[in-house]
Amino acid sequence: MASEIRQNKATKQWVIFAPGRGKRPSDFRRPPSGKDPIPDHDPGCPFCPGNEGMLPSITLETAGLNDSWQTRVVPNKFPALSQDGASDRYRRGLYLAMNGYGVHEVVIESPVHNRNLAQMEPGEVELVVETYHRRYVELMNQHGNMMTLIFRNHGWQAGTSLVHPHSQIIVTGMVPAHIRWREEQAQRYFDESGRCVYCDILEFEARDRGRVIAENESFLSFVPFAAEVPFEMWIIPTRHQACFSNLTDREKSGLASILKFCLARLHHKLGDPDFNYIINTAARYKAHEPQLHWYLQIRPRLTTEAGFEIGSGIKINPSLPEEDAAFLRGD
Amino acid sequence: MASEIRQNKATKQWVIFAPGRGKRPSDFRRPPSGKDPIPDHDPGCPFCPGNEGMLPSITLETAGLNDSWQTRVVPNKFPALSQDGASDRYRRGLYLAMNGYGVHEVVIESPVHNRNLAQMEPGEVELVVETYHRRYVELMNQHGNMMTLIFRNHGWQAGTSLVHPHSQIIVTGMVPAHIRWREEQAQRYFDESGRCVYCDILEFEARDRGRVIAENESFLSFVPFAAEVPFEMWIIPTRHQACFSNLTDREKSGLASILKFCLARLHHKLGDPDFNYIINTAARYKAHEPQLHWYLQIRPRLTTEAGFEIGSGIKINPSLPEEDAAFLRGD
Repeated sequence: MASEIRQNKATKQWVIFAPGRGKRPSDFRRPPSGKDPIPDHDPGCPFCPGNEGMLPSITLETAGLNDSWQTRVVPNKFPALSQDGASDRYRRGLYLAMNGYGVHEVVIESPVHNRNLAQMEPGEVELVVETYHRRYVELMNQHGNMMTLIFRNHGWQAGTSLVHPHSQIIVTGMVPAHIRWREEQAQRYFDESGRCVYCDILEFEARDRGRVIAENESFLSFVPFAAEVPFEMWIIPTRHQACFSNLTDREKSGLASILKFCLARLHHKLGDPDFNYIINTAARYKAHEPQLHWYLQIRPRLTTEAGFEIGSGIKINPSLPEEDAAFLRGD
Repeated sequence: MASEIRQNKATKQWVIFAPGRGKRPSDFRRPPSGKDPIPDHDPGCPFCPGNEGMLPSITLETAGLNDSWQTRVVPNKFPALSQDGASDRYRRGLYLAMNGYGVHEVVIESPVHNRNLAQMEPGEVELVVETYHRRYVELMNQHGNMMTLIFRNHGWQAGTSLVHPHSQIIVTGMVPAHIRWREEQAQRYFDESGRCVYCDILEFEARDRGRVIAENESFLSFVPFAAEVPFEMWIIPTRHQACFSNLTDREKSGLASILKFCLARLHHKLGDPDFNYIINTAARYKAHEPQLHWYLQIRPRLTTEAGFEIGSGIKINPSLPEEDAAFLRGD
């Protein structure tokens, strides 16, 4: 069945209904019973070399060192959204709904089944960033694509359904309330102060030092002042830019090296915890606005959201950002 | 250490930092290794009769059938918030923060260690509802308490740290962005249509029938059109009322019976899944507004939020509300 997107009449939030997703591979859905070593090749894995017959098609490929592929982009075999049908909204009785219009892709980060970003060479991570960027630019050039979200789920508690290192890209045909809210708050700040709130945060953190994890000539990484979860990290470009598409080649290399550094710290200091990361970037039509600034957000999955968090939207973080940062830096 | 509440400068969302919460009992924090039968009394449980010495104090008690207590309200031993100190906001460099002002209480729902709401007699559930209501009215009469959230975490995946049947009450000294957003959307709807959006939803669902689970003279329960998770249920009073404090005695009994029915359906049809429920009610100063309408929301924890949900705020629900409702009704 095709998916449908429905609007919550009371809050105007959209929900994607994707019954086909029930059929996803579930090899990693249950808590892993101990940490068995993962092999570097799995004959049953659709993302491993030699198993191309299990892929719907290959959208993009980048070459590695020895002429073989290094990263690949493929359509998600169990997509939450697809470009069949229009993105028009329609009435369902009292409610508003729309077709499940969108794009759902997988970025295979390496041909090696057990090679994670934290363990890759800088050049390999750079190819992952390059792949993200090429798909982002291409997808945002297509009419009707309103928002492109690049994200990574690592480990069972972070929602992974396949072990092989991969990220995902989802494009939607609308801008959700969550992102509108963030954009509106940045707009208000800009209207009051004439400044990008993210640039102000960046400058404050770079001066304050207490929450900084790492920096290079293009990026700063830090634990945010109001981190929602223990060891949350932001990686933010020091040059003001609303949209991920603005990334220069030099910045791609800076992003790869700081991302690898932060993930390696997480991996070694916390014993390879489950995590998500997300590239938070401007929605279409906001890509050139002076008040927005993209950033990559890493969220380890060490706590459980309970009723209070769901009902109030307030997170309870048992960990202090300054202490988390000192721990990750290794002070 | 006392807790602090910090504001995210970019989104204006508040986060509670509660380092003391690290010391909580964690007997249920790991996935239970199979379903061992739970005894009806546990000598190590602070909520069981005879262990009152383990409680900080007892705030409220209701009497059961045979002169013993049936429900109790006690302070949370590891509170996320407390009423020590003021609720004033202060500057922390670029940022805004406030003391961890608030209230954090536990509602012990029964003296019996293994007796859940789904298994209780209607009169017992009614005493739980009565206890909620008495605390709600009392807490919202205290100056400085801006929002009272009553919620229940059932099972490990829902964030429970103790097995003994209990709910929690958290009061905050501010109204979070999440709730302001919901109230603003209701205000807009009212300004455009002159109607309470929740009354419109209620009437539509009662007529449509497709998503209805149960009803009685005071309440309707249904799977919402844009349910965020499989088997989400709303229980909403049919009489328009913004605030949970408005509940009449007759309605308390109606709420108890439909709540028990819905939880029993979940328990029997889905094999006692983990869930949260939350009473979504008006913040202080909104308690008498014509556009708001409180409701109880039940959210089973059968799916995992991944990077897309975190980054976009859009949920992906693999299950259709109409099918979920039919399954719960037993069609």
